[in-house]
Amino acid sequence: MIKVGIIGATGYGGGELVRLLAFHPAAKVTAVTSRSYIGKAYSEVFENFRHHEELMLQEEHIESMARDCDVLFLTLPHGVASGKITEYVLQKTRVIDFGADFRISDADVYEKWYGVSHAGRELLPRAVYGLSEIYREKIISARLVANPGCYTTAGILALYPLLKEGVIDPDSIIIDAKSGVSGAGRGLDLGVHYDEANESVKAYKIGSHRHVPEMEEQLSLAANRPIVLSFTPHLIPMNRGILLTAYATLNDKKAAYDDIYAVYEKYYKNEFFIRITKKGASPETKWVKASNFCDIGFTPDTRTGRVIVISALDNLVKGAAGQAVQNMNLMFGLEESAGLDMMPVFPA
Amino acid sequence: MIKVGIIGATGYGGGELVRLLAFHPAAKVTAVTSRSYIGKAYSEVFENFRHHEELMLQEEHIESMARDCDVLFLTLPHGVASGKITEYVLQKTRVIDFGADFRISDADVYEKWYGVSHAGRELLPRAVYGLSEIYREKIISARLVANPGCYTTAGILALYPLLKEGVIDPDSIIIDAKSGVSGAGRGLDLGVHYDEANESVKAYKIGSHRHVPEMEEQLSLAANRPIVLSFTPHLIPMNRGILLTAYATLNDKKAAYDDIYAVYEKYYKNEFFIRITKKGASPETKWVKASNFCDIGFTPDTRTGRVIVISALDNLVKGAAGQAVQNMNLMFGLEESAGLDMMPVFPA
Amino acid sequence: MIKVGIIGATGYGGGELVRLLAFHPAAKVTAVTSRSYIGKAYSEVFENFRHHEELMLQEEHIESMARDCDVLFLTLPHGVASGKITEYVLQKTRVIDFGADFRISDADVYEKWYGVSHAGRELLPRAVYGLSEIYREKIISARLVANPGCYTTAGILALYPLLKEGVIDPDSIIIDAKSGVSGAGRGLDLGVHYDEANESVKAYKIGSHRHVPEMEEQLSLAANRPIVLSFTPHLIPMNRGILLTAYATLNDKKAAYDDIYAVYEKYYKNEFFIRITKKGASPETKWVKASNFCDIGFTPDTRTGRVIVISALDNLVKGAAGQAVQNMNLMFGLEESAGLDMMPVFPA
Amino acid sequence: MIKVGIIGATGYGGGELVRLLAFHPAAKVTAVTSRSYIGKAYSEVFENFRHHEELMLQEEHIESMARDCDVLFLTLPHGVASGKITEYVLQKTRVIDFGADFRISDADVYEKWYGVSHAGRELLPRAVYGLSEIYREKIISARLVANPGCYTTAGILALYPLLKEGVIDPDSIIIDAKSGVSGAGRGLDLGVHYDEANESVKAYKIGSHRHVPEMEEQLSLAANRPIVLSFTPHLIPMNRGILLTAYATLNDKKAAYDDIYAVYEKYYKNEFFIRITKKGASPETKWVKASNFCDIGFTPDTRTGRVIVISALDNLVKGAAGQAVQNMNLMFGLEESAGLDMMPVFPA
Repeated sequence: MIKVGIIGATGYGGGELVRLLAFHPAAKVTAVTSRSYIGKAYSEVFENFRHHEELMLQEEHIESMARDCDVLFLTLPHGVASGKITEYVLQKTRVIDFGADFRISDADVYEKWYGVSHAGRELLPRAVYGLSEIYREKIISARLVANPGCYTTAGILALYPLLKEGVIDPDSIIIDAKSGVSGAGRGLDLGVHYDEANESVKAYKIGSHRHVPEMEEQLSLAANRPIVLSFTPHLIPMNRGILLTAYATLNDKKAAYDDIYAVYEKYYKNEFFIRITKKGASPETKWVKASNFCDIGFTPDTRTGRVIVISALDNLVKGAAGQAVQNMNLMFGLEESAGLDMMPVFPA
Repeated sequence: MIKVGIIGATGYGGGELVRLLAFHPAAKVTAVTSRSYIGKAYSEVFENFRHHEELMLQEEHIESMARDCDVLFLTLPHGVASGKITEYVLQKTRVIDFGADFRISDADVYEKWYGVSHAGRELLPRAVYGLSEIYREKIISARLVANPGCYTTAGILALYPLLKEGVIDPDSIIIDAKSGVSGAGRGLDLGVHYDEANESVKAYKIGSHRHVPEMEEQLSLAANRPIVLSFTPHLIPMNRGILLTAYATLNDKKAAYDDIYAVYEKYYKNEFFIRITKKGASPETKWVKASNFCDIGFTPDTRTGRVIVISALDNLVKGAAGQAVQNMNLMFGLEESAGLDMMPVFPA
Repeated sequence: MIKVGIIGATGYGGGELVRLLAFHPAAKVTAVTSRSYIGKAYSEVFENFRHHEELMLQEEHIESMARDCDVLFLTLPHGVASGKITEYVLQKTRVIDFGADFRISDADVYEKWYGVSHAGRELLPRAVYGLSEIYREKIISARLVANPGCYTTAGILALYPLLKEGVIDPDSIIIDAKSGVSGAGRGLDLGVHYDEANESVKAYKIGSHRHVPEMEEQLSLAANRPIVLSFTPHLIPMNRGILLTAYATLNDKKAAYDDIYAVYEKYYKNEFFIRITKKGASPETKWVKASNFCDIGFTPDTRTGRVIVISALDNLVKGAAGQAVQNMNLMFGLEESAGLDMMPVFPA
Repeated sequence: MIKVGIIGATGYGGGELVRLLAFHPAAKVTAVTSRSYIGKAYSEVFENFRHHEELMLQEEHIESMARDCDVLFLTLPHGVASGKITEYVLQKTRVIDFGADFRISDADVYEKWYGVSHAGRELLPRAVYGLSEIYREKIISARLVANPGCYTTAGILALYPLLKEGVIDPDSIIIDAKSGVSGAGRGLDLGVHYDEANESVKAYKIGSHRHVPEMEEQLSLAANRPIVLSFTPHLIPMNRGILLTAYATLNDKKAAYDDIYAVYEKYYKNEFFIRITKKGASPETKWVKASNFCDIGFTPDTRTGRVIVISALDNLVKGAAGQAVQNMNLMFGLEESAGLDMMPVFPA
């Protein structure tokens, strides 16, 4: 069994990772760390794990954990992971980082958007961007994987084939995303206090969300030219799920549904975790809940010459922990869907 | 007291109208009709009205109601009102129609988008589009007011000044809207069954929603040239509220916040029901709930050369019944805010 | 106009009080205080108040406020108000306290349940328990009113007539209550973090909630003998509203619905804010939302010889701010429903 | 592999059964029937099943299905299953009935509470009540299992040990339950229309819910004397989960927590799916969501001499489909937790 350590295991992403790995056929969580709950049973922090999980939360010692574990998952605040991951750590173990420190190849861009200095620039070239469907081959041999952001996963999977095949104008991309509240984490804040978030909707970080440079880098690679895009995330009153609505101008304004469908098929027809919705249907977050699926639908609109692409995923699974497990599976030569082979839960 | 008749009073829009008029200083509901609940007390259909409202639901007789009432509000399915409103009715009373039949000046456009034939083409020239802030003068003397749609109110108020003043490129408009479930009405349907709509989000009628031609007509008038726009409505799990996010390319890509603010001030600074959010803040539906306010915020984005405008309103108030009362006030020479002078309810 | 000061105005109860008083015909809020937001506009703390309310939050000086205001409302943590309210304050102004310090006549009982010492024992005899429907006469002449708790209002109104008339066995009372999350206030806490409270239900403070001694004292007075009761509050995923289900053994196990109805009528038939539901109907919190109503329904069950009484109210209105305004109206000789004459908002 | 047929597979209970069986190590769904969706792909009715499940919905032919399947699950309206299950069917296959027809041993009691005549009285003696933890031995050899109701499972598991051991007074039982909306099924009804159920709570079928006789029969067997109890179900605004709060008078009014704990341990210490919460903790539905767990907590209250017992389960899993799979496992000699070995999903 692959021995797994989780550094920062008491957030929602960490909890979901433990849930997914609990029945993984080839991996086992052997160490979980926390800053606030050291010495406490993990099942006291997340009572859903009672009768299953007997882990105790321990203090973080990344070097000894690197020696003891085959892979470490890090869920740490921005700027922290880059100071902790060292050559020594990467010699001893593999690392999958949930944070943003190694997602953006240009440390200057990272520092500008995140407002912190990057403490591990020398390791950046070794990091592989962990979007399994796109970087599968590189992930297989990676020691350090930067697990993508939740919005970015939804955005890149939605648009990658269209840019790759020149279907849309790279200058025209507008992305409007809607996220459930768990994306904001388990930390207390007035904006996610129950009565403040319930029965309301708002946009936030308009044009300035940190997932922008990540999407722009990846989509620029797809288009083979620099892309600047508009991105507006919204907070909506539900626990889980992201629905992302992308707008772009079609290069062929009369492009037919079937032609665009063929483009998606070219890239995704063998991707188990990507489901293109049937013509006339449209993704809904309820159909992917608690699963690693990303559903994608699209509508060409001849009136406006635009295509509207919609993607839906569970921000804690395909947008975080599920993606990470998928990457782990690739890194260890396992079946890519090992431990992820579960149905979405509906209604939930 | 102005005598008010409501035809089709048992939907959510009708209920909200009764609530708003209950304490109106100069108007009183004297007749409410229904197809399904004839003879039943109104406060049995909406138990919130117990101890306040003693109306009985009666059968609909538009001509006798026209004789007895000073104004009739109609909340009927599309295509029905245009067959009921006659010259005779308009001679005897004033009419405020919640439906779409008289919102679009070109009956052919109406028929194409609504898929029904228009039964009252000859009355179309007499109808005034009831967006109070824009058509105030015409509404004052109107006999027939077409009360705007909920999305359209949010969309037009958000973009009207920018188009009027040439701030944005009319060909670049993309509108992404998020609505609470009450917009779908009180009729049963699997899509609004509790467990289907709760904890999920979806887009619907992508590019084909019937509020498109209504927005296009009004915004074309503002721009003084034809506009074709993209519009995607989304259903989100909450009872009330619409948040609308509009994207448009700035003609001056370096336009400053304050310059755009001045444009909004020019049009709205004396509008009590329109609140421009402070710089750095952004509208949230919770701040307008149960009120007639429409909050508007905007963010110019020099990276992309676009402006993102966000508007928030309560779909049952400024998006329906409140707007209708505002129009009634104008038609009868009352204080425009009469009966609408209430604070948003928070948290609710 | 009655000049109103609010000490501790930035919680949900304070906000609701400002909302209700905004259109009160005979009172006006002239001062609002806060510990955290001194110098800030009130409408920045609660943006729903923009365009209506121009108050600034000031530091608390109870004595000068007592001189300047005709009435002070206090919404402070338990144990704080009793140290602030002095003879001097009560000479200069009237006080309505939202907290529990003056609700329980026996300071020893208070200290036992609340775990703090009572700093104003000498004033206890001057405090009147502010349940308007029951203590109307005393409230009229009171200088210090202890505004009841939210659960207790629902519980006392449900059972008072039955105990007063000897309909039920005082030893058999079990109260199971369900509250929306706003009852927990605006303070941050993991239990009311959005994802923790949403889509879940739990009981809390089982048998030990501080509203127990308050209900027991009032119901003992009704029964004219000591009462000990079981009370279990539950937190349910919604913003507002309390539904309380009370169980008691009927002294006449075959008591008919109409006989019990007559008992309620005897006490409540002239009470505008209490609505007895029709036979066959049952209270739902949605029918009282944002209003001062308390709906009550009951079901005698001949199988078990018990009666089940259900009451519903809005915890921020009849359970807090609305009740307080009702008390103020009584204290100042105003129409009891002044400023409270609004319909419940549905759906909301 | 055990071949499974599901008659009535398009409700929420049927959907959950398909979800649970999808990865069952020893069973496979081979036939699903429907009245409304014959010929449609199952994954079009429940889109969460896309990429996993390729079943087509077929017409119902219970006899041929009995020949083809090793076990049939029936989710049919009350009164229907008893007319369909015949000796022939039971010879050919095993049956697990989600409905109530075979839950109550006395057909007269059934007919009185359900208001329909029982069409299969002769088979009643062969039916085993499918509460696995209590009737394990009988279920192993059963041909016909009556799967318990959702409320009844929560109620019986909460009180069974206390009655069996004489800890509580059988005449004093009051049960107050709170259920998410999925318990009402996927059929359209105004009461479960989104805006009617959201942000509100109500009691329903007070004292007359059909789960009463089922709980009374089972708890009478535990107490070895007839029990009449009070039961009030409530509908709360969430998708899944039941929290049940039971009140009973302690025979020893000073009974200590640890003594009662020992009673629960005696019955449940080896039950994987029953988790007794730690002292000071209390069940919450979020900790059992999407799992087969039933969490139980209790609080002895020496003030009142009562014990308050709280149980939480997922109404679609331990309250329906999970329980059914657990029974199937017993009937086929499998590991009891086969296919049910999943963690609760949190937050969800």
